Amino acid sequence: MSGLIDLKCVPFDAEIVSGSADIVFTALPHQVAMGVVPGLLDRGAKVIDLSADFRFQDVSLYEKWYQTHKAPSLLKMAVYGLPEINLELIRNSSLVGNPGCYPTSAILPLAPFVTGDLIGLNSIVIDSKSGASGAGRSLSLTTHFCEVHEGLRAYKVASHRHAPEIEEVLTTLAALPVTVTFTPHLVPMSRGMLTTIYADILGDLPPDAVHDLLVSYYNDKPFVRIMSPGKWPDTLHVRGSNYTDIGFQVDKRANRLILISAIDNLVKGASGQAVQNMNIMQGLPETSGLLAIPFPV
Amino acid sequence: MSGLIDLKCVPFDAEIVSGSADIVFTALPHQVAMGVVPGLLDRGAKVIDLSADFRFQDVSLYEKWYQTHKAPSLLKMAVYGLPEINLELIRNSSLVGNPGCYPTSAILPLAPFVTGDLIGLNSIVIDSKSGASGAGRSLSLTTHFCEVHEGLRAYKVASHRHAPEIEEVLTTLAALPVTVTFTPHLVPMSRGMLTTIYADILGDLPPDAVHDLLVSYYNDKPFVRIMSPGKWPDTLHVRGSNYTDIGFQVDKRANRLILISAIDNLVKGASGQAVQNMNIMQGLPETSGLLAIPFPV
Amino acid sequence: MSGLIDLKCVPFDAEIVSGSADIVFTALPHQVAMGVVPGLLDRGAKVIDLSADFRFQDVSLYEKWYQTHKAPSLLKMAVYGLPEINLELIRNSSLVGNPGCYPTSAILPLAPFVTGDLIGLNSIVIDSKSGASGAGRSLSLTTHFCEVHEGLRAYKVASHRHAPEIEEVLTTLAALPVTVTFTPHLVPMSRGMLTTIYADILGDLPPDAVHDLLVSYYNDKPFVRIMSPGKWPDTLHVRGSNYTDIGFQVDKRANRLILISAIDNLVKGASGQAVQNMNIMQGLPETSGLLAIPFPV
Amino acid sequence: MSGLIDLKCVPFDAEIVSGSADIVFTALPHQVAMGVVPGLLDRGAKVIDLSADFRFQDVSLYEKWYQTHKAPSLLKMAVYGLPEINLELIRNSSLVGNPGCYPTSAILPLAPFVTGDLIGLNSIVIDSKSGASGAGRSLSLTTHFCEVHEGLRAYKVASHRHAPEIEEVLTTLAALPVTVTFTPHLVPMSRGMLTTIYADILGDLPPDAVHDLLVSYYNDKPFVRIMSPGKWPDTLHVRGSNYTDIGFQVDKRANRLILISAIDNLVKGASGQAVQNMNIMQGLPETSGLLAIPFPV
Repeated sequence: MSGLIDLKCVPFDAEIVSGSADIVFTALPHQVAMGVVPGLLDRGAKVIDLSADFRFQDVSLYEKWYQTHKAPSLLKMAVYGLPEINLELIRNSSLVGNPGCYPTSAILPLAPFVTGDLIGLNSIVIDSKSGASGAGRSLSLTTHFCEVHEGLRAYKVASHRHAPEIEEVLTTLAALPVTVTFTPHLVPMSRGMLTTIYADILGDLPPDAVHDLLVSYYNDKPFVRIMSPGKWPDTLHVRGSNYTDIGFQVDKRANRLILISAIDNLVKGASGQAVQNMNIMQGLPETSGLLAIPFPV
Repeated sequence: MSGLIDLKCVPFDAEIVSGSADIVFTALPHQVAMGVVPGLLDRGAKVIDLSADFRFQDVSLYEKWYQTHKAPSLLKMAVYGLPEINLELIRNSSLVGNPGCYPTSAILPLAPFVTGDLIGLNSIVIDSKSGASGAGRSLSLTTHFCEVHEGLRAYKVASHRHAPEIEEVLTTLAALPVTVTFTPHLVPMSRGMLTTIYADILGDLPPDAVHDLLVSYYNDKPFVRIMSPGKWPDTLHVRGSNYTDIGFQVDKRANRLILISAIDNLVKGASGQAVQNMNIMQGLPETSGLLAIPFPV
Repeated sequence: MSGLIDLKCVPFDAEIVSGSADIVFTALPHQVAMGVVPGLLDRGAKVIDLSADFRFQDVSLYEKWYQTHKAPSLLKMAVYGLPEINLELIRNSSLVGNPGCYPTSAILPLAPFVTGDLIGLNSIVIDSKSGASGAGRSLSLTTHFCEVHEGLRAYKVASHRHAPEIEEVLTTLAALPVTVTFTPHLVPMSRGMLTTIYADILGDLPPDAVHDLLVSYYNDKPFVRIMSPGKWPDTLHVRGSNYTDIGFQVDKRANRLILISAIDNLVKGASGQAVQNMNIMQGLPETSGLLAIPFPV
Repeated sequence: MSGLIDLKCVPFDAEIVSGSADIVFTALPHQVAMGVVPGLLDRGAKVIDLSADFRFQDVSLYEKWYQTHKAPSLLKMAVYGLPEINLELIRNSSLVGNPGCYPTSAILPLAPFVTGDLIGLNSIVIDSKSGASGAGRSLSLTTHFCEVHEGLRAYKVASHRHAPEIEEVLTTLAALPVTVTFTPHLVPMSRGMLTTIYADILGDLPPDAVHDLLVSYYNDKPFVRIMSPGKWPDTLHVRGSNYTDIGFQVDKRANRLILISAIDNLVKGASGQAVQNMNIMQGLPETSGLLAIPFPV
């Protein structure tokens, strides 16, 4: 950012970084992160890791979907960095695995509903739509302007690595096994993620109860905004912000709950959430540096 | 189209139109169409109507979701103009109700699966994503460039009028009641519709069987292309064409079938399908005028 | 902005506003503004007006391109609010006419060159490209998503009202008559304005001299960034910020100077510049509230 | 194109190709083309080459802007494939150099005006705007969706290789040296090119005369559409077609002519023009296969 930032990129040195930083963000590819993080922790650093390497508690689950884990013992101390769910654990942690963007957008709407026999825990369908920035900056025909523009497609249908991440967190919350069907889609926009979730209602769950449950569950959470009934989230309204907007509908004809969330995949879905975790770990106000007004368009 | 077309717009006159046209396309708002179509039929015209007024067989269903029907007796003779389903009926009809874009994209993938106890008929979730042209040319902030661009949102969640249209057709095919949950979304692109469908598998339905069933069901249908396993449709690849591309996945962990279709909402979802119906009604080859190569981007 | 701002919209009352506000921003249509501003000034308010009503010094020029002026006497006290040009005048003013977006993008690159016999003052061609937000929120087919997307067109060619605004300011700077040819274009993006300017070089003006002149002219101006030779501005890099990025080229074969600027039409082209003017008028640091990092994409 | 085309890609063999094809299109990178084309011509093939290798008559001009030419003798027989200018030469040629997209969009509007002392031949400024498909399919951050979307920038300012191509053709037409300033820009859309041209009027050139000259010059040209006065081209209206739409304005205050053209850079700017050349070389109607209706959006 010409004229605004004068930080310089320097070669990584675990010794120097650990000695000088209050907290370290590691934003490295999967597998590379697990080679670097132990050296930082050994030297006393607190780490927020943005790869998948420290998001799982169950190493076998990680190894089934990714590869052999080189630092499995660290998984016991790592905390899943979703502050609305794990606030106290994060506060006391020195290693946080920052959640994936899709899991953030799916877990937050579902969390209030996976206990209390409200919905079928094996009936959950998660249909997510992401802007092209989710695919990263590496070069691929997949992100060529002319392939994205006016294109719309699903990918890794029921085989994306974020499904087990979602399931492990929800299973812990539910204290019962949760299985989800998860389909990600690529949408012709730069930023933003909209996730539409479907689940069978087990007994009776009137719209008012859904709204009340969402409002009370996220009552004191500064970055979750519950929409009024009949209003649904729009990625435009969270763009550039750390908000998660959540709306809902009860399909009475099918007795099915529909939850919809919108996040900015690059903020609440990645770096903003990492800063939120930092704030918590450092005893700062949770919202420090994160109250920028959304930047629609 | 300057330099290409020299047809002139003239005031509508049922007498003149009926006397001179082999077939009449009525592209009028709901409720207006039902006032015009009877006069055309009375004068011996064949009509393909692009409104919702002649899509329903059950007048009470129409009146529940739209308004009082002024020509209910015509519903008995009207044929739902989805040629892949109703070919023979269309051939012999003089009044065709041209399907909505969402129903076309949902019914075609589902049709092979609603018989034979393959899927739960009340477990169907239809998550559709449409480009902005689906909202028409009338002026609204909803279609202002700055509201659509980088925006992504659901609307009329579980309350869109295309849900009963889908259900009536599937119920007829299944000969059993079918209930669907239907959520439309607005995506920042001009054309194209992607529909992702989820349904519980009742017994055992291996991927090969899904593929075989789709291929055999649409064996002789020129506008349905079944994707190979592991490939999924992209709106880019049907743009400007009358194709419906259908892909699938079996989520074995959840024993759930996933079907995905892509159409151009303005062609197979509207005018292209109307021409296809005309071809059939007039005894022309079904593909006449409809074999333009897709126009990606 | 749900959850962020709790200001309420209230009916306008000049008495209340003047009594309680340090400074008043009037963002009203042309002609409406000139009916409201005098009442505010009479009551002692300082006003920054975002319409065209107080941008001209010469009332006959205003009346030629707009309409009869109802408060022509105010034009003598009004200052053209381009802080890089009129800093001291703005500081001491109580009525600032905030510049149009096109004039801001054209005047800043040209200002250093209109004195000293460097370029032909009647040879200036200004080719501007604007995102759709420049057309405002009012409903029109012109801003319908499907008309803007993949569309690119010029409008009001050599007949746009911003041409005389540019000319009057440059003429004052040059102390000689300046005539420009100005062509605005509408580009399929939401925000951003790129202006490419051409002018005949009168004598010899080597690239180094162009660069030095730009750098020295804007030496102490916090919102103007001069690009290194061979680099040209991109609207992405000023998005959401108050910056004006300026690049240049000397076409030696034609002995012609090319200047290129990029601004965010909604920030430096409108509200950001208004805040910059407020800072100056109130004795605040010029950059207060305006150092947000650009928000590319 | 699944289901539509069953041609197979086979390794190139000059012998086989020359023996079986009526005409050969070579769409190869610069420098590669000049290695392949001679072998085809030697074997009696007619060739339409889409690279820059056979666009120049003056080999020194080619070598100044590109590299050493390996088949300079062929330049004498090669014809510049702009049918509206070189119809008879193309008809009798066996080697056509298909024009660049920018030159097509610039030469056609200017051609009627470079003779007769109408405009200053050194006063011409060409400001072109191209969609991202102009940059090709090769992978580069420059065409990454997130870099193009909402981005707008000039590149190769006054240093693009299409400038000498434009100048050589216009110089031949004018029979006097023509020098142009040419600035290409990248616009966030897939297809389309809009070129805005400025030139000093030498004497008196009223709007009616401009319109009449354009209309008469392109009277019998099927792919040039002259806009009525006060209307200007839009890339949307030529999308997918072989049309060049040309509009104009006379800026009386500056006595400057403004010409604006719109083409589809992939059709009239490349492959469509190649087919038009083929039609002419083969004695087919010039419009064969090229009358598809534009595909707006």
